[in-house]
Amino acid sequence: MSSQLYLGADVGGTALKYVLTDSRGEIQRQGEVATDPQSTAETIERLGHAVAPWRSALQGVGLACAGIVDPQAGTLGRAPNLPGWEDSDLTGAIGAVFDGLPVAVANDVNGALYGEYRSGAGRGADSLVMLALGTGVGGGILQDGHLVIGADCGAGEIGHMVLDLEGPPCPCGNLGCLEAWAGARGVVRAARERAAGEAATDAFRRLVTEQAEALTPRHLSELAAQGDPTAVALYHEVGRRLGQAVGNLVNVLNPDRVIIGGGLAAAAGLFLEVCREQAVGQILARAARQVPIVLAELGPHAAAVGAAWLAREVERID
Amino acid sequence: MSSQLYLGADVGGTALKYVLTDSRGEIQRQGEVATDPQSTAETIERLGHAVAPWRSALQGVGLACAGIVDPQAGTLGRAPNLPGWEDSDLTGAIGAVFDGLPVAVANDVNGALYGEYRSGAGRGADSLVMLALGTGVGGGILQDGHLVIGADCGAGEIGHMVLDLEGPPCPCGNLGCLEAWAGARGVVRAARERAAGEAATDAFRRLVTEQAEALTPRHLSELAAQGDPTAVALYHEVGRRLGQAVGNLVNVLNPDRVIIGGGLAAAAGLFLEVCREQAVGQILARAARQVPIVLAELGPHAAAVGAAWLAREVERID
Repeated sequence: MSSQLYLGADVGGTALKYVLTDSRGEIQRQGEVATDPQSTAETIERLGHAVAPWRSALQGVGLACAGIVDPQAGTLGRAPNLPGWEDSDLTGAIGAVFDGLPVAVANDVNGALYGEYRSGAGRGADSLVMLALGTGVGGGILQDGHLVIGADCGAGEIGHMVLDLEGPPCPCGNLGCLEAWAGARGVVRAARERAAGEAATDAFRRLVTEQAEALTPRHLSELAAQGDPTAVALYHEVGRRLGQAVGNLVNVLNPDRVIIGGGLAAAAGLFLEVCREQAVGQILARAARQVPIVLAELGPHAAAVGAAWLAREVERID
Repeated sequence: MSSQLYLGADVGGTALKYVLTDSRGEIQRQGEVATDPQSTAETIERLGHAVAPWRSALQGVGLACAGIVDPQAGTLGRAPNLPGWEDSDLTGAIGAVFDGLPVAVANDVNGALYGEYRSGAGRGADSLVMLALGTGVGGGILQDGHLVIGADCGAGEIGHMVLDLEGPPCPCGNLGCLEAWAGARGVVRAARERAAGEAATDAFRRLVTEQAEALTPRHLSELAAQGDPTAVALYHEVGRRLGQAVGNLVNVLNPDRVIIGGGLAAAAGLFLEVCREQAVGQILARAARQVPIVLAELGPHAAAVGAAWLAREVERID
């Protein structure tokens, strides 16, 4: 094991995943502890116990967390997935356990983006846009090697780009957000709508009825992979809307690369070409039409790996 | 007159506007020379003659130009307004006349944005988004005090953000670009469409018929200012679509401020409140809903003033 290690953690509602990376960002060890949904301090103490054997080698600690994270202040604001952690001092809680080590905190999608930038699909690029297709759609922007946090730590909410003022409803209260088409919840909603329509195949209708509340995008992508026209059309629309958003983002930022991650990206074969075609048709600057739209590489550890990188570069980030 | 002057120029299809600014960015003198649409070199020579009396005080030269400008290479690429200048070496042409001075070049909207940032509506901010509502809709992004140029010099094409895949046609070939609603051409097109509809007032219909090909947004905003419901509704839609775009941009970048400029901004009283309301309704991060949406302050000299600032800070920009 390397003598210089960086600890990166990604806090979810039930578990905190962590990695120990070496100075090249390679994962040397990984694990998880249970999240205490009411106590930041208790959860970080559990993390401290879990990594105690490597404490002397630790050079820095990074923590990624869903919600509005202020990396400068080291605090968590609004956090729908961790209501008991809202308005907590993340840096303080980490400092109490990992006394004297540099600490970095970040929003979870920004953590994942930074991980991809340093160790994954974003290597060698300088400006990146990331879309994370999960239950909802998260996003992150990297500009000149720095995460764009925003004046109120509110940047990167790409999932709430409104693509049609009369589009389907989004949990945020608006209509026609990208998330309403390209998040898992939106895909399931659209599937139910299609199943209720005239044009749906019998197989599609049967799947939606049988799965009922248990219906997931995976059921639908499996049916699409078998060639079912209704399921194929559903994913075609995911790609078209994703492409509309990607085209808009490239026209605004013209990044080196666009990275698509999150659980839905496993079915990218069903929508990535449509996405690319739609995006390219919208991009004004000819050279920018070549922008690579690539899949994330680091999988579920991306945010923890990115948090470890941020801890390592904490002076650079501040 | 100050002993240290910066020359900033803004090249249009028929005229090159220039300013001489002092070290605080204040305009000390302004003027224009005719653009030679076929020759970059000839135009810059005319500029050299015009400012010859102040040659010894000049500390730098900046040039802003519509089209795809590469500030690093100092070149102009695609330039629909100046086809005879396409693929020319702007920095070389300036260097041939203003030997030995630092030179900066920029896209015209980026020039205007930088001018507003240093001397106008963007003073004191660090991250800005600008929309310039002219014949079309231009845009610019400033992040951490630096213009976002993009990997292929294609950033800031905010006018081509697609807001509705089934929206009105845009000259770029797509449907539903912001420009198709909020550029002068789009406003005129929408007015003709409304005039042909059932709901139009007689006054509105008469204006559109009488002005025919000479119809401009100014005619329409004058009618709206008199309270004509059809003209008011037309500008309401401009505001709603602008707001949809601004909301999207704030969700992506969360800038310190959004600046609205260009000729149409003179009628902002007819659409800015609707724009703000639509944008605020879309913005996810609560604090970001307070984002100031302000009007540009520098008027038609913004790009020249910004070019002078860029020349002054050429080392900082590179």
